[in-house]
Amino acid sequence: MAGAGRFFEDFIVGDVIRHATPRTITLGDLALNQALYGNRYAVQSSDAFAQALGYPRSPVDDLVTFHVVFGKTVPDVSLNAFANLGYAAGRFLAPVYPGDTLASTSEVVGVRPTSKGDAGVVWVHTRGTRPNGEPVLDYVRWVLVRVAGGRPLPDPVVPTLPAVVDPAEIGGACPRIDASAWDDALSGSARRFDDYQVGEKIDHVDGMTVEEAEHQLATRLWQNTARVHFDGYAQKSSKIGRRLVYGGHVISLARGLMYNGLENAFHVAAINGGRHVAPIFAGDTLYAWSEILDKQTLPGRDDVGALRVRLVGCKDTTPGAFPLKTADGKDDPAVVLDLDLWVLLPR
Amino acid sequence: MAGAGRFFEDFIVGDVIRHATPRTITLGDLALNQALYGNRYAVQSSDAFAQALGYPRSPVDDLVTFHVVFGKTVPDVSLNAFANLGYAAGRFLAPVYPGDTLASTSEVVGVRPTSKGDAGVVWVHTRGTRPNGEPVLDYVRWVLVRVAGGRPLPDPVVPTLPAVVDPAEIGGACPRIDASAWDDALSGSARRFDDYQVGEKIDHVDGMTVEEAEHQLATRLWQNTARVHFDGYAQKSSKIGRRLVYGGHVISLARGLMYNGLENAFHVAAINGGRHVAPIFAGDTLYAWSEILDKQTLPGRDDVGALRVRLVGCKDTTPGAFPLKTADGKDDPAVVLDLDLWVLLPR
Amino acid sequence: MAGAGRFFEDFIVGDVIRHATPRTITLGDLALNQALYGNRYAVQSSDAFAQALGYPRSPVDDLVTFHVVFGKTVPDVSLNAFANLGYAAGRFLAPVYPGDTLASTSEVVGVRPTSKGDAGVVWVHTRGTRPNGEPVLDYVRWVLVRVAGGRPLPDPVVPTLPAVVDPAEIGGACPRIDASAWDDALSGSARRFDDYQVGEKIDHVDGMTVEEAEHQLATRLWQNTARVHFDGYAQKSSKIGRRLVYGGHVISLARGLMYNGLENAFHVAAINGGRHVAPIFAGDTLYAWSEILDKQTLPGRDDVGALRVRLVGCKDTTPGAFPLKTADGKDDPAVVLDLDLWVLLPR
Repeated sequence: MAGAGRFFEDFIVGDVIRHATPRTITLGDLALNQALYGNRYAVQSSDAFAQALGYPRSPVDDLVTFHVVFGKTVPDVSLNAFANLGYAAGRFLAPVYPGDTLASTSEVVGVRPTSKGDAGVVWVHTRGTRPNGEPVLDYVRWVLVRVAGGRPLPDPVVPTLPAVVDPAEIGGACPRIDASAWDDALSGSARRFDDYQVGEKIDHVDGMTVEEAEHQLATRLWQNTARVHFDGYAQKSSKIGRRLVYGGHVISLARGLMYNGLENAFHVAAINGGRHVAPIFAGDTLYAWSEILDKQTLPGRDDVGALRVRLVGCKDTTPGAFPLKTADGKDDPAVVLDLDLWVLLPR
Repeated sequence: MAGAGRFFEDFIVGDVIRHATPRTITLGDLALNQALYGNRYAVQSSDAFAQALGYPRSPVDDLVTFHVVFGKTVPDVSLNAFANLGYAAGRFLAPVYPGDTLASTSEVVGVRPTSKGDAGVVWVHTRGTRPNGEPVLDYVRWVLVRVAGGRPLPDPVVPTLPAVVDPAEIGGACPRIDASAWDDALSGSARRFDDYQVGEKIDHVDGMTVEEAEHQLATRLWQNTARVHFDGYAQKSSKIGRRLVYGGHVISLARGLMYNGLENAFHVAAINGGRHVAPIFAGDTLYAWSEILDKQTLPGRDDVGALRVRLVGCKDTTPGAFPLKTADGKDDPAVVLDLDLWVLLPR
Repeated sequence: MAGAGRFFEDFIVGDVIRHATPRTITLGDLALNQALYGNRYAVQSSDAFAQALGYPRSPVDDLVTFHVVFGKTVPDVSLNAFANLGYAAGRFLAPVYPGDTLASTSEVVGVRPTSKGDAGVVWVHTRGTRPNGEPVLDYVRWVLVRVAGGRPLPDPVVPTLPAVVDPAEIGGACPRIDASAWDDALSGSARRFDDYQVGEKIDHVDGMTVEEAEHQLATRLWQNTARVHFDGYAQKSSKIGRRLVYGGHVISLARGLMYNGLENAFHVAAINGGRHVAPIFAGDTLYAWSEILDKQTLPGRDDVGALRVRLVGCKDTTPGAFPLKTADGKDDPAVVLDLDLWVLLPR
């Protein structure tokens, strides 16, 4: 499917697509991830810190797993997409370490033509797996895909998706840790699971200006082939007139920024939902803030607890003003990302 | 020879130059190569895919081997070059894996002063070797080098070079593979050696816009010291007025783009010839197309076959128009690269 | 301490700060370091070259160790700094290899309010250590930190610092090497310790133009959180109006350039002192030159000798003019970096 990509009519509910180019994740990828996003979570940064908790070594940043699994789906799913509409039911199922190889498969789980008939929403259930078939990541994504035309459009099938991943179903990618070995000075904060309150808002303070070279490096690193990200010549004659930054780049930048105030939120366990509210371009500066939406213990686990976090990315603004909606209920024009995550912290 | 570099008169036919700075190729280099060029060939991307075929692990991208070997020659060969004129007789001789260390030597095999007498063509036969002397890459390159002046110029010696590498001499860098284990879904295409026709032209569809930071990262990664690539201040007062993108960066981008339509061409076995038709600058968008010039089986091998591919890089244009020459036989102004390769595909 | 950072009054002489986020240095980091700075020192580039000398493998570039240790101190020491004033007494104490994990601690060793009272100089003695406590790097740095106000300012305590590190105290990070196995062709020069003269000036010839993406990648790779380096939006309303390049990026670029003429200076053993004379911005081209200030043998070692080198970084100029001071004794406006190092060469 390289090159042309599928159109709306090519997606048949029930079809399973095995995506091309499995990928072995290496320490080289993790260094680039570090250079692109500036993460400071001790578990992923220090083998010694991770080993003290019981990990065999530092695990791969959860979003690296996400990008690798996601990137493979682009040539088959979203090459002709107008927009990436949302994510749901994302669960990290098993820890991933450098040297692990991942591939992706997607099942078409929903289709709905738009009323105009020139495009349709396609839902795919994507699974990232090891060569032995073991799943490491599971999520649903829906995109608005161009209609090729000349063929009948399918009847709508709309999948039922959970608003939130059940906390009983998360934590599979986090081995039991020895929370007594957690060193607050090295992790950067003494605030653990019990120290956060539902409703609390956190200003993540810092900002990151995005450069064309950076997001292009990221997009190619994760083998994402969406042209809008790196074909500046073609983009000149597009409506938007320039290259678009890959949405996952924005997610990882927000995750990097989120360290300020959530230093011990070492693991993204689930993506309940997410929306790229507005595009981001080279030259824009991304900031982020969070709100704690919920907190839950995990069945049978006294080592870690889960915070449900609304992670909001905003650009060229002051994150401490917590921009979200305007007075008339529309998206604040500064907001570019609205993510809903379960993150784990030591107890 | 760091710093000043050799002038035309310093090249004596028969001299052998051992180049500085051997280099151990690591997984870190390969991750950067991935981020710079966006390759999607399954053999180099997935240890598991490579192992299923019989490789001990994913081999190093052939062009990484080329860049590492080539980069070392620059301080000794082309620091005072006006132009890199061509390549011939390039053969990849042995597989290279992460952790392997390579060094380079060059023998001067030809010199020819230009009629003007202010420069001369120098041919060098370069060999990349392991510390034990085993060669992994062999090629001839010729460059136009400045005359220092004040010394007599040598009589011309022009080497005889093959127009095409004999297919009987290629394949040394490709271990026998178990082609029955080749998974077309994972490689991205079911088109194998037998499915391509001589004369066929392939539009590689995608484009990549080049940024200054990207080509500078590449040039330094490969320890290429040609000033024109990263000294913007000096370049301002040059005829061209700005930094030039390293020609090898363009070759690797074209190789990355070539995946669309040649997904199973997993190994570059030989460089029959190559010409940087025109320079490329930051901000330009590179596209590519290919023509199948020939196809040959390899003696004693039923696992892989070789396609001779003309890989044409062009900028800021539509690759599907297959630009090459203008009506009056000159280079099409969009064309920047004209490469002639043997690539291997499973049978 | 993530987010807000310490103000001048928060620094109490004698306090020891354990910095967050230990870091395992990987081959991925070293590849990025290579791509950012273009180093060509054979010891760090080739495992085979290093092993021939007696190293178990190529050691980590000394400045990578410096950046990793330094980066951790920023959130605690210099987030509210107006300026990074200087370094002294820097010693590399033990070799560092890929896979080693480093953390940092800093002791406050001096404080002095400025006469204006809105800021103060803070001296910290920083130590980089392995998880078992073994130190690998030791240095003093002083910064000008903002006064928060409303609290009494401390009495001045000014530490005594050596002008030069005693040569008897250096070399700990350089295992005894077999200098007879040093291959001058592979290292790039036959000039060894004995071949340099005190007073000699060396033009490092090449220049490197800095891009925003490059210094941002570096700053995040080393987990340096100083906002001035990557928050372009906030910088727009600062006095300087744009992003500042991390001073350590300039140091590493100068170290990369220094290869031309000091090819065998394979190890930075000590930082006697250093000053960022002027800022550098994206688009500037960095050049470098050196003066040999002293040369010393090391007690009990006949394998290596130490050159004391003044390494001067200058921008958008001709390094062969050796810019340093103007006729009236002020800093030459082209000079951006004035470093005083002990470097080791084979004898």
